[in-house]
Amino acid sequence: MGRSTGPTVSKSPAKTHGHSRPQTRPQAPREHHRDAHAQGQPEGPYWIYGHHAVTAALGNPERKLLRLARTGADIEPGEVEGGSGDWPEWEQVPRDILESWLPFGAVHQGIAVKVHPLPEHGIEDVIAEAADQAQAVILILDQVTDPQNVGAILRSAAAFGALAVVLTERHAAPESGSLAKAASGALEHVPLVRVANLARALETLKKGGFWIAGLAAEAERTLAQAKLNGKIGLALGAEGPGLRRLTREHCDLLVRLPTGGPIDHLNVSNAAAVSLYELVRATGEDEAED
Amino acid sequence: MGRSTGPTVSKSPAKTHGHSRPQTRPQAPREHHRDAHAQGQPEGPYWIYGHHAVTAALGNPERKLLRLARTGADIEPGEVEGGSGDWPEWEQVPRDILESWLPFGAVHQGIAVKVHPLPEHGIEDVIAEAADQAQAVILILDQVTDPQNVGAILRSAAAFGALAVVLTERHAAPESGSLAKAASGALEHVPLVRVANLARALETLKKGGFWIAGLAAEAERTLAQAKLNGKIGLALGAEGPGLRRLTREHCDLLVRLPTGGPIDHLNVSNAAAVSLYELVRATGEDEAED
Repeated sequence: MGRSTGPTVSKSPAKTHGHSRPQTRPQAPREHHRDAHAQGQPEGPYWIYGHHAVTAALGNPERKLLRLARTGADIEPGEVEGGSGDWPEWEQVPRDILESWLPFGAVHQGIAVKVHPLPEHGIEDVIAEAADQAQAVILILDQVTDPQNVGAILRSAAAFGALAVVLTERHAAPESGSLAKAASGALEHVPLVRVANLARALETLKKGGFWIAGLAAEAERTLAQAKLNGKIGLALGAEGPGLRRLTREHCDLLVRLPTGGPIDHLNVSNAAAVSLYELVRATGEDEAED
Repeated sequence: MGRSTGPTVSKSPAKTHGHSRPQTRPQAPREHHRDAHAQGQPEGPYWIYGHHAVTAALGNPERKLLRLARTGADIEPGEVEGGSGDWPEWEQVPRDILESWLPFGAVHQGIAVKVHPLPEHGIEDVIAEAADQAQAVILILDQVTDPQNVGAILRSAAAFGALAVVLTERHAAPESGSLAKAASGALEHVPLVRVANLARALETLKKGGFWIAGLAAEAERTLAQAKLNGKIGLALGAEGPGLRRLTREHCDLLVRLPTGGPIDHLNVSNAAAVSLYELVRATGEDEAED
């Protein structure tokens, strides 16, 4: 993702849907601070395993590969497009050795690659990426700790064309093999942006032209009723606590999903998928209809 | 869920949305066979753990409770509504003993109950339940084996008011503690119907007034474009293989979700949540608007 330093272009007004709020958020001049200096580094090198995750890692030019391992010479990744081409030699190792490197019970399909964590992306990178887009969606996860949920959310973000997933630096799943596995390759396609201070990141996004909607069960309006349009950052909290108070206070509005009954809360990755679907459906109906 | 033996009432036509297919599926007389005799029994007694799952189990009059265990006398389930009231005494056990009964790494929150699997429900029960409803949604899972996915799907089914989740008897997640945990209580609210022969179950559902839509990436129309209405059975396959050929052949139509990009497949529980949302949104907009 390139990072431009020029002023962001202002957006042409998007579809209105009878919406009373201005469609284009007024943009302040780009601030020069970014959160990168305060972002924690992800954990050190780790193993990515399973066909989809490995194939995507091999195809990512930004991914630094340390070791390639498989349980048989006939095990090949899928068709790799892109990538640095600068791969280590494949090592053929017995299954029990491979499994000793992976989390207990990992579904590895006989293939794994040891990698460095991806280079960091900052909030400003996301804003720059969105600069010439009238519509954009990013997800903001407030202390979501389960790597399977974060991985599945990345996967949905890729499938619905979200620009990035923003995470808190602490109390959030680190980049890892189980996250990469659940993401099924999407970790190589959707930037995972870690910020030290979520409230400040939300303010930076607002100045960059994003509306921030927080998902909260007690909200009056559903996401569909809010008829959001333009550049949207959707904030989701961990199951149980939900969005933290400070996070809520930095949202432009709170919305809910139209759930009900005795079990009215979705799993956070399902809530993210449904929200992404609604945002894509409402703002990109021409694409969905083709 | 009661089982009526009388003829099903015919449905009043639902909203049309410019839809060319008849809105009310012609219903054949109820067949007398049902799949119950061919259904495999779930596994034997098992432990349900974690606050939401335990509270829901205690509140389910159909649930037979064998043991109640907790790591401290101050650990109470949530507010239990319903239930048989016929509980065994609480046992207070050390954490390591409790954990020795549970799957490795189970997040139990200090509370667990040993239960019998729930009584079986058959396809005919679902049809009877839907008999006086103009709109109804059920999910049909074709060999979905991961208990976390099946649990999350049950949870979404409860949140969006689906009547039941139909599973194959073999090559499908059995009722278990990890399924109940992922369902977060929904296992006690949404019937899990196991059938030996999925193709036959689909035909039974069709005769019972349901349209069967299969989710398949290669379908031409999106689920939204299909403008489904009335009683809908939505079939989802396992990740990778998708719907089996025979399952597809018994669907009335195939639909897809409007995903794209390098990672265009959602996790199956996310696909189920998005599909349920779309079906509820399209057929129950009055509820969503209130």
